[in-house]
Amino acid sequence: MKPFLSLTRRLSSPLAGTLHSTRRLHLSAFAPSTPRLRFQISQTNKKKPEKMSTDATTLKGQPLDKAALESMLRRRLFYTPSFEIYGGVSGLYDYGPPGCALQANVIDLWRKHFVLEEDMLEVDCAVLTPHDVLKTSGHVDKFADWMCKDPKNGEILRADHFVEDVLEQRLKGDKEARGLQVEEKEETDKKKAAKKKKNKGGVEAVKLDDAVVKEYEEILAQIDNYNGEQLGELIKKHDLRNPATGLQPTPPVSFNLMFQTSIGPSSNLPGYLRPETAQGQFLNFAKLLEFNTGQMPFASASIGKSYRNEISPRAGLLRVREFLMAEIEHFVDPEGHKKHARFHEVADVELAFLDRHTQLSGSTVVKRQTIGQAVKDGLVDNETLGYFLARILLFLRKIGIDEKKIRFRQHMDNEMAHYACDCWDAELHTSAGWVECVGCADRSAYDLSVHAKKTGAPLVVRQRLEEPITVEEWDIVIDKKNFGPFYKKDGKTIENALLATTQEQRGKLVKELEENGKVVIDVSGVNDGKVEVSKDLLAIKWVKRVENVREYTPNVIEPSFGIGRILYSLMEHNYWTRASDGGDEARGVLSFPPAVAPTKVLIVPLSSNKDFTPEVRKLSQKLRSAGVSSRIDDSSASIGKRYSRNDELGTPFGVTIDFQTLKDGTVTLRERDSTRQVRAEEDKIIVAIKALVDGTKTWQDVESELPLFEGQQEVEVTVR
Amino acid sequence: MKPFLSLTRRLSSPLAGTLHSTRRLHLSAFAPSTPRLRFQISQTNKKKPEKMSTDATTLKGQPLDKAALESMLRRRLFYTPSFEIYGGVSGLYDYGPPGCALQANVIDLWRKHFVLEEDMLEVDCAVLTPHDVLKTSGHVDKFADWMCKDPKNGEILRADHFVEDVLEQRLKGDKEARGLQVEEKEETDKKKAAKKKKNKGGVEAVKLDDAVVKEYEEILAQIDNYNGEQLGELIKKHDLRNPATGLQPTPPVSFNLMFQTSIGPSSNLPGYLRPETAQGQFLNFAKLLEFNTGQMPFASASIGKSYRNEISPRAGLLRVREFLMAEIEHFVDPEGHKKHARFHEVADVELAFLDRHTQLSGSTVVKRQTIGQAVKDGLVDNETLGYFLARILLFLRKIGIDEKKIRFRQHMDNEMAHYACDCWDAELHTSAGWVECVGCADRSAYDLSVHAKKTGAPLVVRQRLEEPITVEEWDIVIDKKNFGPFYKKDGKTIENALLATTQEQRGKLVKELEENGKVVIDVSGVNDGKVEVSKDLLAIKWVKRVENVREYTPNVIEPSFGIGRILYSLMEHNYWTRASDGGDEARGVLSFPPAVAPTKVLIVPLSSNKDFTPEVRKLSQKLRSAGVSSRIDDSSASIGKRYSRNDELGTPFGVTIDFQTLKDGTVTLRERDSTRQVRAEEDKIIVAIKALVDGTKTWQDVESELPLFEGQQEVEVTVR
Repeated sequence: MKPFLSLTRRLSSPLAGTLHSTRRLHLSAFAPSTPRLRFQISQTNKKKPEKMSTDATTLKGQPLDKAALESMLRRRLFYTPSFEIYGGVSGLYDYGPPGCALQANVIDLWRKHFVLEEDMLEVDCAVLTPHDVLKTSGHVDKFADWMCKDPKNGEILRADHFVEDVLEQRLKGDKEARGLQVEEKEETDKKKAAKKKKNKGGVEAVKLDDAVVKEYEEILAQIDNYNGEQLGELIKKHDLRNPATGLQPTPPVSFNLMFQTSIGPSSNLPGYLRPETAQGQFLNFAKLLEFNTGQMPFASASIGKSYRNEISPRAGLLRVREFLMAEIEHFVDPEGHKKHARFHEVADVELAFLDRHTQLSGSTVVKRQTIGQAVKDGLVDNETLGYFLARILLFLRKIGIDEKKIRFRQHMDNEMAHYACDCWDAELHTSAGWVECVGCADRSAYDLSVHAKKTGAPLVVRQRLEEPITVEEWDIVIDKKNFGPFYKKDGKTIENALLATTQEQRGKLVKELEENGKVVIDVSGVNDGKVEVSKDLLAIKWVKRVENVREYTPNVIEPSFGIGRILYSLMEHNYWTRASDGGDEARGVLSFPPAVAPTKVLIVPLSSNKDFTPEVRKLSQKLRSAGVSSRIDDSSASIGKRYSRNDELGTPFGVTIDFQTLKDGTVTLRERDSTRQVRAEEDKIIVAIKALVDGTKTWQDVESELPLFEGQQEVEVTVR
Repeated sequence: MKPFLSLTRRLSSPLAGTLHSTRRLHLSAFAPSTPRLRFQISQTNKKKPEKMSTDATTLKGQPLDKAALESMLRRRLFYTPSFEIYGGVSGLYDYGPPGCALQANVIDLWRKHFVLEEDMLEVDCAVLTPHDVLKTSGHVDKFADWMCKDPKNGEILRADHFVEDVLEQRLKGDKEARGLQVEEKEETDKKKAAKKKKNKGGVEAVKLDDAVVKEYEEILAQIDNYNGEQLGELIKKHDLRNPATGLQPTPPVSFNLMFQTSIGPSSNLPGYLRPETAQGQFLNFAKLLEFNTGQMPFASASIGKSYRNEISPRAGLLRVREFLMAEIEHFVDPEGHKKHARFHEVADVELAFLDRHTQLSGSTVVKRQTIGQAVKDGLVDNETLGYFLARILLFLRKIGIDEKKIRFRQHMDNEMAHYACDCWDAELHTSAGWVECVGCADRSAYDLSVHAKKTGAPLVVRQRLEEPITVEEWDIVIDKKNFGPFYKKDGKTIENALLATTQEQRGKLVKELEENGKVVIDVSGVNDGKVEVSKDLLAIKWVKRVENVREYTPNVIEPSFGIGRILYSLMEHNYWTRASDGGDEARGVLSFPPAVAPTKVLIVPLSSNKDFTPEVRKLSQKLRSAGVSSRIDDSSASIGKRYSRNDELGTPFGVTIDFQTLKDGTVTLRERDSTRQVRAEEDKIIVAIKALVDGTKTWQDVESELPLFEGQQEVEVTVR
């Protein structure tokens, strides 16, 4: 069971190939349990032990040096650990100016692409959420991981990861002992040394019995399928010890991933920070439907922070405790095959699909086909789901995600969250493998149903029927006069539970009432969960009536975007390096599309000569009036250094003001990726920039219209 | 002491006049303590007891019917109580589609007006904040209110409010007994009855001794000046009882207003939800300065949610537990009189000032003058503070706040937060009186200093001096070799405390060291706060050196915006009613400026005739391409009803598609405030709309260019 955002670290090439590893990192608490799949993968991949993905590439296909990229991103303040001067808190990051602008631009495009384009009803709901809401939604009981503790050093371990780690180490030691250690070759000696040092025990070359190897591999194949007790048994049975202390950790206990707090001055209202924005949208369903003048289908949307108290976040921006989400809840009639009125507009969009059958066969070869064909073939269940998958692809493409690094992976049957009946993830390939960045789930009627049942609120659509229909069914009749006084404060809850019974249940209750003079029903939260209702207070009658209105609970299709993960992927996908003048040092470039680039234009006066100042101010003001964000770099660094700094910030255009400017009012315009320049009068350059940023012209157009400037080439355009 | 956002409920006219009331509602925990001021006010206003402000007006000067407005805002889903189907949680609200769009538009304008216009460095920092950070900033100790509890019904009472309420009731009863009850006249009988019922004890007409009246009045005048113990003594001494139970509440205890939680799986990292965004900006100061290539002055900015666990929030959107803030931290050299390079651009902007001297004299008459004059006269301390006050006014004006309802009120000396050395609030007049919506404080070097002292991080600016200077001063010399081993884990903290001593302190320490062979210094968090350092580990020497660099801690000017309060004020200021056709029912209108209006255009097909559908779709698509947000209302309601619904949503323009459209491609364009219409070809109308929304044309311009359409006037334009 799994909702949005499990970080799937697969160790395969972005484009195709077989599955290389049995290891996944789950970001989410509804941990997937996919024993069949995992077992099969294990069978087909026995001889390929885990290693960190080293096949990530830059925009230009160069091998990605992740350390160099991350160092650059921190240096340029795209992001930085929060509270660093206080030692930092793992899983919390701040976005600096370029990261913040990138985020704002991506959110702006998201709002235009989804909310405005489709007239969605955007809401902004409270993050603080009272206990009852998340109890009903299932998060209080299910949004948890198993954790255990080292009895000596107090280290907290996520139980499934711990079992996995220790068994994998033993299997590695076994391979070493058998002389099979080939896969480690790619690690440098330095890395190896660091690793050895970290794992106090190191990888001991101990040969295992063949039967033990088989047992370990089977455990690993279904690691997601064990509950806490079973993980505890595994730890005992196999004497799994924390390498750091040589001790067995304590038995696993459940750890809920929600941040808890208390609302109000008395501590009687426990609450949580929401783990997703969805619940706020569901609770407002009836109001939103009314706002939409009762018309179906419609979608709500929300952009806001959510919180998950990860046990040990260690994957940079990919696994954090506080993150921005953008979620859409599209409410649709479950009858009528979930058709979508605008499906034809996207029918020809081609996607890379990795369906569940392919995965079950142990392969990760994607199938490229149009969404129209995929829905027709039944690969994707319905038009609405298909429509959103295509729209997600178009959005990712628009913001500059590398399309070769996008695939749509279908969840296994037993991998899905408790509320979902189908789910496709848009996964982006990064240095951490394939990462789920957008989940697109069919949550069916789950959430609206449970909240309606709990509160008695009518979270339903009432549709006028063109022709009335006659209905015959069991009807619950409550003796209102005596029912309330008898049950006192629980009366409303018990009444709701009775009214929520299905026709089938009512059929049984009728017999029970006849035979025993009373019925016993389940009412969570009252007594021990069982309540007796006598025939003095309750009748169940077979009634016949004509209905003019059809009442139904809508289904929900939920595209859910992890903005932080998308931003990180966007940075990786747009990163590349080029040789510098000297050729000794590769310079980083972030080739963001102008629409998302944090700043559009760098203004560079040739030197700190005061005569340039008025020109710089004037240009800056003109760009601002044109709605184009710019920054001035009048530091004393050389032009080349300043442009280089700016390439690292992903600024697509640069304007230089030099002595020629003072004479004839012309300036040069530089394009980041080619480093080519044109020169023209300032106003012409501004018009060109505006067109480039709006996307109405390409750099090629501009080069063909304005004179090329070859005065000075600050770097060679060599891809290293 | 008081930071941003104390809700000051003053009961005066928006335009001028004396202070009518002694009552204020403080939103903030750093409760102001202003005994002198309050006493004086009390003296001059003895005979004007508190009543709810009834002088709020609509945009057209009509008396404001707050209940009608709030009902409309909720019906149209501008906002709604969060979790309402679960009974709601006080102080938490969700924004529905129009509220959310209004908020997004205001934020967008804020970002353009401040961040882009001034090249501010926007950051997005973590909300979850570890204990140490907020301990250092002073929030753990000082961000608290006093609360007590009713021993019978468990009701939680804010101690100062409770004392105030009971004493005011007694004074009211006294007046009644003396036959002086004139002020209640305006209350309707119904309201009175409700009030009587609520206050179980009611207002008992009991005459008090003159001396008692005087004592009560003096207590009320300085209610903000009592600590918890003193409030407890007042409750005992005057036998103050909760009207609901007739009992004395328990002694007041301190209640910290921050939401507490635990970060990570072990509970050893206590944290809070931030109460302001400022701290994240301060902690990143060194990185931001480097990002800005070391140049001063500069500003950072942040837009995000903050949290305050109010004891009993009851003022709708004006006092909530979760709220959006937009904060600027402008870092400036404390030397050089805090000049601002762009001050001349705003020097002629005229503001309504209410300075502290005027308030101390018991008056609220504002002085209107230019900011240039105000800074020149020393009314506003410096150019940077003045620049931001003017920019705040320009922003509020731009988004559609009624300028007549804006004043800038200076804080009293003893009303300011612990970190502030001067503070002006932009207060907006609403039905709740004058409400602080923007605080503009000079936080001096407080925050950077305390964080630097605590962590040892150099939160300073190093400025190269044009001419080196010679400095003679006391220097701390620590025996590094032995100091660390001696003090072990506390070594660094003690060292920082020594290095943070002033020259004056060092002068004293030298003597102490000579006389006692050791010094005793204050080190919070180590032992009992006192640490001995012997002369074996420490020397203090008089040194002379030449410095090429000047090192200083910048001062911070902080304009801090409460977005929720601004939004609520914006709705009140733009609200008015007009008589409907029948004349029997006033219809609400929200006259938002096009730039902030949630939706710019309503598209209305004349009827549900299917022939209109393609035209509607085409127009909607064209508007979208032009970047103008629109909504379609093709419900079966009459045109008048649909426009009326839309006036309530504040949509400035409406386009009707009718049978004429199908013949000649013309449509009508309606303006919300005048309800006047023009008719022209669709493309001309779109051009006109675009110009109206961008602000390049007024409705008068459009009327003069396009033919007036008088076919149908759906409402009379009568102001009731």
